[in-house]
Amino acid sequence: MSEVYATRRSVLRERCAAAGTAAVLVSRPANVRYLAGAAPRGAVLLLGGTGDTLVCAHPLEDRPADGRPDEALGIAVLPAPGGDTAVAAAGLAAGRGADSLAVEEHHLTVARHRALAGAAPALRLADVGGAVEQLRIVKDEEEISCLRIAAEIADQALGELLESILVGRTERHLALELERRLVDHGAEGPAFATSVATGPHSGRLGHRPTDRRVEEGDFLSVCLGAAYRGYRCEIGRTFVIGTSPADWQIELYDLVFAAQRAGREALTPGTGYRDVDRAARQVLDSAGYAAALPEATGHGVGLEIDEDPRLAPSAMGKLDACVPVTVEPGVHLPGRGGVRIDDTLVVRPEADGGPELLTITTKELLAL
Amino acid sequence: MSEVYATRRSVLRERCAAAGTAAVLVSRPANVRYLAGAAPRGAVLLLGGTGDTLVCAHPLEDRPADGRPDEALGIAVLPAPGGDTAVAAAGLAAGRGADSLAVEEHHLTVARHRALAGAAPALRLADVGGAVEQLRIVKDEEEISCLRIAAEIADQALGELLESILVGRTERHLALELERRLVDHGAEGPAFATSVATGPHSGRLGHRPTDRRVEEGDFLSVCLGAAYRGYRCEIGRTFVIGTSPADWQIELYDLVFAAQRAGREALTPGTGYRDVDRAARQVLDSAGYAAALPEATGHGVGLEIDEDPRLAPSAMGKLDACVPVTVEPGVHLPGRGGVRIDDTLVVRPEADGGPELLTITTKELLAL
Repeated sequence: MSEVYATRRSVLRERCAAAGTAAVLVSRPANVRYLAGAAPRGAVLLLGGTGDTLVCAHPLEDRPADGRPDEALGIAVLPAPGGDTAVAAAGLAAGRGADSLAVEEHHLTVARHRALAGAAPALRLADVGGAVEQLRIVKDEEEISCLRIAAEIADQALGELLESILVGRTERHLALELERRLVDHGAEGPAFATSVATGPHSGRLGHRPTDRRVEEGDFLSVCLGAAYRGYRCEIGRTFVIGTSPADWQIELYDLVFAAQRAGREALTPGTGYRDVDRAARQVLDSAGYAAALPEATGHGVGLEIDEDPRLAPSAMGKLDACVPVTVEPGVHLPGRGGVRIDDTLVVRPEADGGPELLTITTKELLAL
Repeated sequence: MSEVYATRRSVLRERCAAAGTAAVLVSRPANVRYLAGAAPRGAVLLLGGTGDTLVCAHPLEDRPADGRPDEALGIAVLPAPGGDTAVAAAGLAAGRGADSLAVEEHHLTVARHRALAGAAPALRLADVGGAVEQLRIVKDEEEISCLRIAAEIADQALGELLESILVGRTERHLALELERRLVDHGAEGPAFATSVATGPHSGRLGHRPTDRRVEEGDFLSVCLGAAYRGYRCEIGRTFVIGTSPADWQIELYDLVFAAQRAGREALTPGTGYRDVDRAARQVLDSAGYAAALPEATGHGVGLEIDEDPRLAPSAMGKLDACVPVTVEPGVHLPGRGGVRIDDTLVVRPEADGGPELLTITTKELLAL
């Protein structure tokens, strides 16, 4: 794996050199991990000049849970305990004779940026923008393999839950049980806070579990994901509780299912992000649910659960092959509840069979 | 409760007016919650001029899990979906005729600050600094009551765990079980990621649970906390597994216990933050463990698990009554393990009986 990190760093260094900056300071944790193989808490990565250095807030432990930095291929590790690692890194860059430093202005706070400028006044500060996030969009097969395992784990945890008795249990307990099962099956932990929404809460994006109990006749919507080697996937499903769903439940489910399928089918290399969103959205729009729709119908996943690209009406750009995204339209009717269906898929060319579905739990409407 | 929030907001408005700024933009989520009674995801709070406004990223749901904003006493709610709420709030302030706006430069990113300046070029931007964090340090009795309940919940969860069989179970599973028990006893959730550390991991600050199993002869250190109505407490204990601890374990435990007691006993109104730290630290220092010590021996708790004040060698300032803090010295010996003992206490005057211990689980060395 070391070559992978070294290659990623050299791509970034070259881009910044071409833009006229001698060194780059990466502070966003997922970006640090992407480039260094590890992101100890508070660590920042300085690239360029005479070598790459991971500046750490704490002495490195013998076995950091978030991996070892890539010492094999050219990352020095410098502890800077008690201080601001970004400030220490800027001092280091200046000390090595760099005259300019690109920083992540979308991650550094105004106060931290000022402290950094004050500590190294000779450095011309520039903005590296979302350069690392852009590199992270297209995944290599090793990254996709981690996402595939994460999705398998989430499918297993969800499958086991469906075999248990649900009526009478609270949203909070079901969410905790799902998280325990994720860990049972080998996840490092949940990819994000597990959402379990019953009855009037169902279908709501990012609903935080409450003490409401599952009742007969409820919609139950669940959204969970596993983290595996740092990579995070997402699956969402909606079920009905009881022997037979009501007519409005079947109609709403079929509609959201049709929207989600339209989104999935739009996932081909070269399709605009906004066109995937539109494919799903117009199904719901034309049924009169325009106001009930979220701002996006999907997003990239990887080292963060919500990363580029966004599948939204105003998003610019086109899908590439090997980009993993969610497709997750939903409708929530205040007071009644609703439906969300959410898959993680990898964009693949038609010749390779089209989009690869990572989360394979059935999307039939199950009555539990 | 509404009066409480209104009073907090008027204190902040007055301070900013005295500093010459007409309006304040609060963006840090815990600060928004402290002043508005709720902090929907992405929301910012604009204070001053012709009224206080909570600018929300999403339409407000019928029952947000993080509370209702304080509409009763003068907070308007303005949804700004799809955009940056801080930018929308700056536009609102400018539209209301404010000529200056204080922002949280320690929270806003450089990129967001620039977007905000661009959207309202007539506004003179200033820095409100840590003004809200400063207000949050001293708690009222209602806040302390939430912390007391949070501590009771953590004590209960920990007590139950101690009655179960531990040998052979993994750190990850024990951590998940503790989190389930926190919720069983009424917590909204864990106050932070529960830490369970066995054998060579024990005593390590913020250790993330691994698949290592509890073994006979291990030190087992556990750190957990409950969130209750947004307020977060912390308790940490170290146990030995097996019938009788080894001599080095007893010695190390007694030493850390003595350090922690010294820290607790230093918690009186008027004592310097650094003096509390020194009281605990010098016990460990004089036993030769200076290098093994963390940067701080405690910190404030409240709406965030790690807030002002810091009890550290370089901390400036003195304790007030009604400030809840942790006292949590520890020693970790690489390869062998170690001991951490962590309580949450509220500073009280001697006349009121001295520091109030919220986390009452025994600190005797238990062999489990």
